Amino acid sequence: MSHESVFTLEATPLKYGPGAAAEAGWELERLGVKRAMLVSDPGVAAAGITDRVRESVETAGIEAEVWDSARVEPTDASFGEAAAFAVDGGFDGFVGIGGGSSIDTAKVSDLISTHGGEIMDYVNPPVGEGRKPPSPLKPLLAVPTTCGSGAEATTVAILDIPEQHVKTGISHRYLRPDQAIVDPELTASLAAEVVASCGLDVICHAAESFVAKPFSERERPDSPGDRPPYQGSTPISDIWSAKALEYGGRHLRDAVGGDQEARGWMMLAASLAGIGFGAAGVHIPHACAYPIAGLKHEYHPAGYPDDHGFIPHGQSVIVTAPAAFRYTFEAAPDRHRRVAELLAGEPLPDADEETLPRLLLELMDDVGVPTGLRELGYDVEDVDALIEGALKQQRLLVVAPREAGPEDLGAILRASL
Amino acid sequence: MSHESVFTLEATPLKYGPGAAAEAGWELERLGVKRAMLVSDPGVAAAGITDRVRESVETAGIEAEVWDSARVEPTDASFGEAAAFAVDGGFDGFVGIGGGSSIDTAKVSDLISTHGGEIMDYVNPPVGEGRKPPSPLKPLLAVPTTCGSGAEATTVAILDIPEQHVKTGISHRYLRPDQAIVDPELTASLAAEVVASCGLDVICHAAESFVAKPFSERERPDSPGDRPPYQGSTPISDIWSAKALEYGGRHLRDAVGGDQEARGWMMLAASLAGIGFGAAGVHIPHACAYPIAGLKHEYHPAGYPDDHGFIPHGQSVIVTAPAAFRYTFEAAPDRHRRVAELLAGEPLPDADEETLPRLLLELMDDVGVPTGLRELGYDVEDVDALIEGALKQQRLLVVAPREAGPEDLGAILRASL
Repeated sequence: MSHESVFTLEATPLKYGPGAAAEAGWELERLGVKRAMLVSDPGVAAAGITDRVRESVETAGIEAEVWDSARVEPTDASFGEAAAFAVDGGFDGFVGIGGGSSIDTAKVSDLISTHGGEIMDYVNPPVGEGRKPPSPLKPLLAVPTTCGSGAEATTVAILDIPEQHVKTGISHRYLRPDQAIVDPELTASLAAEVVASCGLDVICHAAESFVAKPFSERERPDSPGDRPPYQGSTPISDIWSAKALEYGGRHLRDAVGGDQEARGWMMLAASLAGIGFGAAGVHIPHACAYPIAGLKHEYHPAGYPDDHGFIPHGQSVIVTAPAAFRYTFEAAPDRHRRVAELLAGEPLPDADEETLPRLLLELMDDVGVPTGLRELGYDVEDVDALIEGALKQQRLLVVAPREAGPEDLGAILRASL
Repeated sequence: MSHESVFTLEATPLKYGPGAAAEAGWELERLGVKRAMLVSDPGVAAAGITDRVRESVETAGIEAEVWDSARVEPTDASFGEAAAFAVDGGFDGFVGIGGGSSIDTAKVSDLISTHGGEIMDYVNPPVGEGRKPPSPLKPLLAVPTTCGSGAEATTVAILDIPEQHVKTGISHRYLRPDQAIVDPELTASLAAEVVASCGLDVICHAAESFVAKPFSERERPDSPGDRPPYQGSTPISDIWSAKALEYGGRHLRDAVGGDQEARGWMMLAASLAGIGFGAAGVHIPHACAYPIAGLKHEYHPAGYPDDHGFIPHGQSVIVTAPAAFRYTFEAAPDRHRRVAELLAGEPLPDADEETLPRLLLELMDDVGVPTGLRELGYDVEDVDALIEGALKQQRLLVVAPREAGPEDLGAILRASL
């Protein structure tokens, strides 16, 4: 086989700073938008954030209609409702205001409004048809309000498909927002539990990316168009991932505690990690997280809206991370050690396969999230179903530094109970 | 005054790797181009690189016309010739193949082809009219062949205006290439002297950006549109600048010596530094470099085409860098120390104002470039004219960490003789 020699760097243009959200209207005007759909969720709207953005947009002379029914952890149905609103509304631009759910809903609304079709046409195979949008979408501005998903920096929209008990995504470079505005003031009203869950997602994004199989171990594709969106780790994705780990280790605990400056750093970490994993990819913890979030809806997390049971994305990801990194350690000991050092903020020359798992468990404990699957409603009899769900995420598992088959995933999941 | 609270990150999408230039046609096709102007210079064409790119473009079914008369260190006249070719040719896309000169010439050809007018309409005031392009340009692909300018990553085109004895630029976000292809194989035929000069330019970009006045010390503008292209250093520009300094310290000497892998790292460093200084800005050494390059044309550098006397950009920049950083040290000692550490690749807890200048002089000596202005044809009687030229670069000088008036610049220039 001929090894891949090429990697890419793409980053959503980012504007960061306290008060930056007031520039939403200016950015939309610059992007040529006359009539915008503002996608948000009830919690963000209740916090008054959606209206602040709407004011900025309207002050710039741009029509704005708010659709604030984005669902935390979206589904094909919730994406479909937003997309129908988008198609009917005759919009020429979109704004996603909220966590990953709102921003991803805005991406998909833009996609269907621009190119038509049904949600499942575009969903990654084998779950959906994997149709590629033929040309760029209408302008999309992303205004994150959590410090977690990094959705503003990625080219993917994640959704739950309850009918198939699976979580998957729509991935394409054209889903990348044209501009992100990252304003730490928007995190002031976030519950500590939301900051904790989002922050652990950031740390997983960065850690999984940093230890991901190097891009040069993939086979070189016949055509550049066949290069996968997740390339494996590269010298440039490493820069982003390392910086996000450094910020996460230094600021997550304080951010959960309510420190506004620390929340600002975590917001920046989320965007940096998003750029990193948007290139390198995530693997075992995220592959396991999809069925963990998709199979059961019995858990009612503190700090989140209580209208439906669900597992916050960050918690579904981090819960298998200690066992997953213990498993992958042998494939890249130096890289796992480096992740541990970046999180700890100090040299750890003696770090072994237990060091990173231990640091992660301590962090989970400190910020108050469940450290085992049992707390999320799963037990040993669910492991087979979880394995089956994780195995559907081959798009992710291929970038794992160590191959993970059904038995390996089973061992990781059982160790995570 | 109300301090700036916002900074931005924008990065040209980058594709890096040996052999990546063969994907030029695929990228242009993706960008929707049917008929492209390939801007290059005689040296690059003679090395066969322009034809390799043309082949890739034509294989993708795209018409390609080569204009290979880009002048090393372009002028308003040379930009004008290229622009006239661009307007006459009816192109819907552009490719810049070469060093900063070719890529900048492609940016300006694209600008005039898209929006009309004369070169001087767009040149930064007070030298030109500072007209802003009203909408995005036609697609532009940048294929650098040196490891220096970072032009693929910036929003500026630099030109010499011999009539006014000044070097200045055209700056606007729409000048940013839509895609860069950075292929280290293209540097194989570069003369050692060219690698040296380009690499020192990279190191100056990164060092000047890293010590630049922090963005938060600027006044907050009334409108986002009034924010200057050079923002001052930011937490994100620091990431790029630091990584470029690390690569520069580790690989420049070997790259000059002909080591291909080291040249690859320097090429990547050039792009990273370009992203960094494209945001943060450069200041005293670059402000001095413009008159140094513009005033006299008597120097005939080894390793470059000998059709006209000129001072390679990297040499005109680095020559005042030791004295400039000695002058700015007191404004940000920790940052200067960190630059020295990144270049040296080791902690330097005792670094003082002489450390960074000494490291730079050693590096200049090791890679064989002049360490003083006298070697470039200047002497004490030229200092007043050089000061006058440097003072025209207020756009740059405002981001210097320490204010530099005529007397300060005079002292720096005299110390650099």
